[in-house]
Amino acid sequence: MLHHERLRPPTDDYTPDEWSLIEKAFHPEFAAQMESLFALGNGYLGMRGVPEEGEPNVQNGTFINGFYEEWPIVYSETAYGFARTGQTMLNVTDSKIIHLFVDDEPFTVLGANLRHYDRRLNLQAGTLDREVHWETPSSKLVRIRSRRLVSFRHRHVAAISYEVTLLNQAAPVVISSEMLRQNPKAHAADDDPRRAKMFSADVLRQRAGYVRDRRVVLAHGTERSRMIVACGIDHDLETECPHNYKATHADGFGQVAFSVAAEPGKPIHLTKYITYHTARIVDPEALCGRVEWTLDRTTGQGFAALLTEQEQYLRSFWQRSDVGVSNIVAERARLTTVEIQQAIRVNLFHIIQASARAEGTGVGAKGLTGQAYEGQYFWDTEVYLLPFLIYTSPRIAKNLLRFRYGMLDHARARARELGHRGALFPWRTINGEEASAYYAAGTAQYHINADIVYGLRKYVNATGDQEFLFECGAEMLVETARLWCSLGFFSPRKAGKFCINAVTGPDEYNTVVNNNTYTNLMARENLRYAANTVAFLKTEKPDILHALIRKTGLEAEEAEMWARAADNMYIPFEAATGIYPQDDGFLDREPWDFQNTPEERYPLLLFYHPLNIYRRQVIKQADVILAMFLLGHEFSLEAKRRNFAFYDPLTTGDSSLSSCIEAIVALEVGEFEKAVTYMRAALLMDLADVGGNVTDGCHIASMGGTWMALVYGFGGLRDYDGMLSFRPHRPPEARASLRFPLTFRGRSLHVEITPEATAYTMREGDELVIRHEDEVVTLTHGEPTAVRPIVRH
Amino acid sequence: MLHHERLRPPTDDYTPDEWSLIEKAFHPEFAAQMESLFALGNGYLGMRGVPEEGEPNVQNGTFINGFYEEWPIVYSETAYGFARTGQTMLNVTDSKIIHLFVDDEPFTVLGANLRHYDRRLNLQAGTLDREVHWETPSSKLVRIRSRRLVSFRHRHVAAISYEVTLLNQAAPVVISSEMLRQNPKAHAADDDPRRAKMFSADVLRQRAGYVRDRRVVLAHGTERSRMIVACGIDHDLETECPHNYKATHADGFGQVAFSVAAEPGKPIHLTKYITYHTARIVDPEALCGRVEWTLDRTTGQGFAALLTEQEQYLRSFWQRSDVGVSNIVAERARLTTVEIQQAIRVNLFHIIQASARAEGTGVGAKGLTGQAYEGQYFWDTEVYLLPFLIYTSPRIAKNLLRFRYGMLDHARARARELGHRGALFPWRTINGEEASAYYAAGTAQYHINADIVYGLRKYVNATGDQEFLFECGAEMLVETARLWCSLGFFSPRKAGKFCINAVTGPDEYNTVVNNNTYTNLMARENLRYAANTVAFLKTEKPDILHALIRKTGLEAEEAEMWARAADNMYIPFEAATGIYPQDDGFLDREPWDFQNTPEERYPLLLFYHPLNIYRRQVIKQADVILAMFLLGHEFSLEAKRRNFAFYDPLTTGDSSLSSCIEAIVALEVGEFEKAVTYMRAALLMDLADVGGNVTDGCHIASMGGTWMALVYGFGGLRDYDGMLSFRPHRPPEARASLRFPLTFRGRSLHVEITPEATAYTMREGDELVIRHEDEVVTLTHGEPTAVRPIVRH
Repeated sequence: MLHHERLRPPTDDYTPDEWSLIEKAFHPEFAAQMESLFALGNGYLGMRGVPEEGEPNVQNGTFINGFYEEWPIVYSETAYGFARTGQTMLNVTDSKIIHLFVDDEPFTVLGANLRHYDRRLNLQAGTLDREVHWETPSSKLVRIRSRRLVSFRHRHVAAISYEVTLLNQAAPVVISSEMLRQNPKAHAADDDPRRAKMFSADVLRQRAGYVRDRRVVLAHGTERSRMIVACGIDHDLETECPHNYKATHADGFGQVAFSVAAEPGKPIHLTKYITYHTARIVDPEALCGRVEWTLDRTTGQGFAALLTEQEQYLRSFWQRSDVGVSNIVAERARLTTVEIQQAIRVNLFHIIQASARAEGTGVGAKGLTGQAYEGQYFWDTEVYLLPFLIYTSPRIAKNLLRFRYGMLDHARARARELGHRGALFPWRTINGEEASAYYAAGTAQYHINADIVYGLRKYVNATGDQEFLFECGAEMLVETARLWCSLGFFSPRKAGKFCINAVTGPDEYNTVVNNNTYTNLMARENLRYAANTVAFLKTEKPDILHALIRKTGLEAEEAEMWARAADNMYIPFEAATGIYPQDDGFLDREPWDFQNTPEERYPLLLFYHPLNIYRRQVIKQADVILAMFLLGHEFSLEAKRRNFAFYDPLTTGDSSLSSCIEAIVALEVGEFEKAVTYMRAALLMDLADVGGNVTDGCHIASMGGTWMALVYGFGGLRDYDGMLSFRPHRPPEARASLRFPLTFRGRSLHVEITPEATAYTMREGDELVIRHEDEVVTLTHGEPTAVRPIVRH
Repeated sequence: MLHHERLRPPTDDYTPDEWSLIEKAFHPEFAAQMESLFALGNGYLGMRGVPEEGEPNVQNGTFINGFYEEWPIVYSETAYGFARTGQTMLNVTDSKIIHLFVDDEPFTVLGANLRHYDRRLNLQAGTLDREVHWETPSSKLVRIRSRRLVSFRHRHVAAISYEVTLLNQAAPVVISSEMLRQNPKAHAADDDPRRAKMFSADVLRQRAGYVRDRRVVLAHGTERSRMIVACGIDHDLETECPHNYKATHADGFGQVAFSVAAEPGKPIHLTKYITYHTARIVDPEALCGRVEWTLDRTTGQGFAALLTEQEQYLRSFWQRSDVGVSNIVAERARLTTVEIQQAIRVNLFHIIQASARAEGTGVGAKGLTGQAYEGQYFWDTEVYLLPFLIYTSPRIAKNLLRFRYGMLDHARARARELGHRGALFPWRTINGEEASAYYAAGTAQYHINADIVYGLRKYVNATGDQEFLFECGAEMLVETARLWCSLGFFSPRKAGKFCINAVTGPDEYNTVVNNNTYTNLMARENLRYAANTVAFLKTEKPDILHALIRKTGLEAEEAEMWARAADNMYIPFEAATGIYPQDDGFLDREPWDFQNTPEERYPLLLFYHPLNIYRRQVIKQADVILAMFLLGHEFSLEAKRRNFAFYDPLTTGDSSLSSCIEAIVALEVGEFEKAVTYMRAALLMDLADVGGNVTDGCHIASMGGTWMALVYGFGGLRDYDGMLSFRPHRPPEARASLRFPLTFRGRSLHVEITPEATAYTMREGDELVIRHEDEVVTLTHGEPTAVRPIVRH
């Protein structure tokens, strides 16, 4: 049940378009939201969509994935084992600033008399483009065209093409290209726990800074995390007008100012090349050297080449990833097909922007579009993003899983600290250490372990990448399985079943509970996969098993114990009602008084004390419903119907992770109207600011969820056993269709669903056996295999 | 079950004495513990037992009850309704310092060559006395006698009598009487959550300071709480030796130095008068004026008069309060009768020191002997201290209850903030606002409401002070009853019973649980008392009911609702085993692995993550066992036996609030050996540093608990229904006896229990009907009524 929508007022100034996000006028009241939506990024470097001039700037931000500062977490009342080190992704030097002065009058979109305004995120070119026509106070007509990109191909590189043309009269023009260290703003009275912790002091101290020709390089270091970021800008100016330049730098500031005697009709074309390099405890000069190499190469290459590579990258991305819709749920969702298509693509585009080059790092809750949640990595990656990436960009999926593998030692240490065997992955982190300062909705979310393993298994199944399983996965399986065994126990009071107490499931409105159904089901899956993998290695790959034993000290009887825990896992179930209680105590809680909860008191977490929420039957986000999706094969359709009917009205959707999942399960249980409502909320989570906080960044996980809602929901994809199966929800509308590609074990499969039939086309790769509805279908390369729906009576 | 005892090594230097605590040599390794045990106080002003010289000083402290600074509680992840304002009782200007120089050599107990050393807390005079004989490096023999008191009669006054006599040779002597603002020490790496938060900056800023003759006055103010403390010292010097003096002051410092040409055999007698006044937002000069009046009066009165009043006060106190023992459990507890008698009296003395003049304030967890727990007030007062005070000093009990009444508006606001009706008293506070920064073991302890009402009811029953009930109590009853009604609900899943979910009971090792048995039982008592009081007022005191309705907006059907909730209160009970589960989930938890928990890992809270503790069957402190004492009439003896046998082995006693209660219930269920062990632990909690933290202050609640263990435990007192009843545990030892007075409804009753008989003597007041064993006995003034034990077979 959705209780709130904060839809942006519809306005003609945001023209829907299938391949762009367009702004036809600058609305200061939406400036912060558009900063998030117009953000550019490549998974390594991100820049919020602040205008070139650097203003208006509500929450300007430039982020490097994994570049963070630590801070000691302070507890007024502390306890053993509380996370000690907070981590915050820093807002680094802003290098995209270009100030324009005509007749010494500065240009800003807010103050200026604009005759034309067009800003758009180009989803095919991967650029943020703007064209404005400015009439200056002295009646000069100035056309400003800019194009900004953060390169997917070269992850350290961004560039801006900036062209100024006087249209009617000559005038002196100054184009000042700048870089500026961002000072964190104090958010003193801010009690929203989801926002970023702000540092009061100058967290970035200058370690190097110099000018060379039209190039400025600045390096800054952090104190506690001991990291360095070096940033360089370089420039080309092309114009027929006479010009010169002056370059300067100061603490936290760099500037190359071009003075041009501009003549009408003669464009002044500035290209600004930007690069960022980061490292841990390295000589700042060495890092500046890397900056210079990148600038040398990039300026040599030129903007056009960067743009071509960007388009190529995205062409390939869209080929692998684009989901096409025609006439699907549009009318019911009060949207046009174009609006839906736009929303899908904006979402997918932001996912690739968040993840493409996340190499050696994770993907933050807001990607690189904002600093909320400290820029930390959560389960979002494995549960909400990986499915999309596994089926469209498996290389990226692998990088993200490898990153988790890289934090295994931290996870081992954390498990030991908490008195467990094995490894416990951090609920939230940047550097691998647990950074959750509120254990009830942090450390207690042990399900993170199973979520990661779930992602691992899906990855291995969908790619066939056994090597990764053997090299990294198996070790993660051993340690996570150990954790579950040491966490739970065989309870004599539950007929000897394996119980897991005092954990928090996905739903953060019911914390520190016993036998969270989601957790127990996912833990069982984790234990089984671990036991099966070890059994497989034993018979098939003894060498690899040997290596695994060396790495983990695995003992003979351990896998048996995992299997025993899995086989005896306690799953709460109430026979009388057919309800799977979310946890042992859930049904005993007092029902939340939804009737007397006004709309403006959502999300509840901002208006009610945790105890008030925890003691009641009210749910923040899909929990049992999520289990019914992720492990749908464990539930009969009837059980799904009954449990959806029970849980859906209790679920506030106060988390953006909920709607997409609800949409999928709603479709499955035949609640089509609800599915459409949830689909709409998921699709528009950011574009219409459904959660009311897109100012703080885009909801990357929800964006991944929209792909799942389309492909798992409408497309009816399931993949529990490693085999692709489809049970499409065929659109009833005339001329409707849903089209999407899937990468599966080296093959490229294209699926098109229409009211008449589902067509499977193998564009690349060998024969593949899939299931369609209850039928096994063998697909061969080339020719589409069309399967007509069975007409049911 | 007790897992640890950190007994101080027995040493001849701490001679047991019935009326003193004696130190015959200064042991630096016990210096901090002795600072706590030798602390003086009167409930308003407290001074730790640091030597006059101010050193050695491990944790020097001077405290004014209710004088605190606020600080914003910082949460790295915050949530709605978390307590915002921390409060810490401040360590104020130390005014007791007297430096002594002979031949310009400073005297300190540590460096000096001592020929004699005797320091003792005199429990009859209420003084800390010291006599030392010092042989200086140049062979001067110096006798130093000092006597320090914090006046019970004049709560703003302390005084020191300080006498120096050269015994063998003449020498120049300087006696420098000083006052010094205490700068808080940084305790950076300290993770013990029980310790005080230290302020880093100079929390006390000087607001006034001047010298007048031999008088110095300093006033300091706090920044956030906007309080002022003014402190003055004045002096009399009596000696036949020539002398002069010099008085100076500086920021945070005052000094009056007497230079004496000391001659052998001629005592130099300095009397130092000290006064403290505190106020909120008052002109510092005005407060200094009050200091001067007090100093004028006190210097006029003289030390001898102060001492006489002090002795009178304590004579009366001991008459009303002393518990005499002969030969009781001594041998079994590996103690002598004198040691037991000493421990009892030290404990009772520290209670009166903590509470005597606590007027308009509460009693902190450590009284005024230390800064642990920020000096905040907890339920300790009502549950552990009030019984003693009600039966010995009802006036003080009333003051403490009146203080609770004074914070009713804060409690109303807090209830509203948490979405409840009525009032929710703060779990920990100084100024009435909730200061708990960890809700699971703080705000969730809703039982505080019922604890306060329990204390109120006991007070009204034992004193007959209906006026207080009508004036203040009834309003508290209405608001607390409302809180319970709005907190709980009639659960259809518990046969319509009234359930209270997501609360924490007394046991902080099981938090945020459903239907904590203690809480539900105590809430029922609270609801019943409220309903009965309103019913009584309706028929007997309509005017008072009217006033109550005006003050609270009480509606007609409310009291019915309270009665209904009480009558239908859900009390967890497992018929198969006869166990009252501590809460709904308690029996489902995994048993704690006591066998593999080494002794040095207690208290568990310092070595295990809360989740690890919460998910297991392990108990910090008496919870169901406490309910079986406080509401013993709700349990059959058989139920008590069974439940004690079940809970006792699970109870670590990691809280000092546990042993005394365990002792009482152990006695009742016939576990005599256990009772002796617990009695010993409670008695020696501070004297033998059982908890290992007496350095941080004395455990005032446990001290109150020892009185209960004697009077309720061995004396067998019960008072559930307002009638006194006794079921003494007669000492089996020959010539054993237990003697204690009780103040009851204006009467003074003396009870003496021997193996042969129990004798009740009404020393003051009219006829009184009591129960002895199962017999109703009518006592009349004067003659003892001896009741011989019934011999059972």
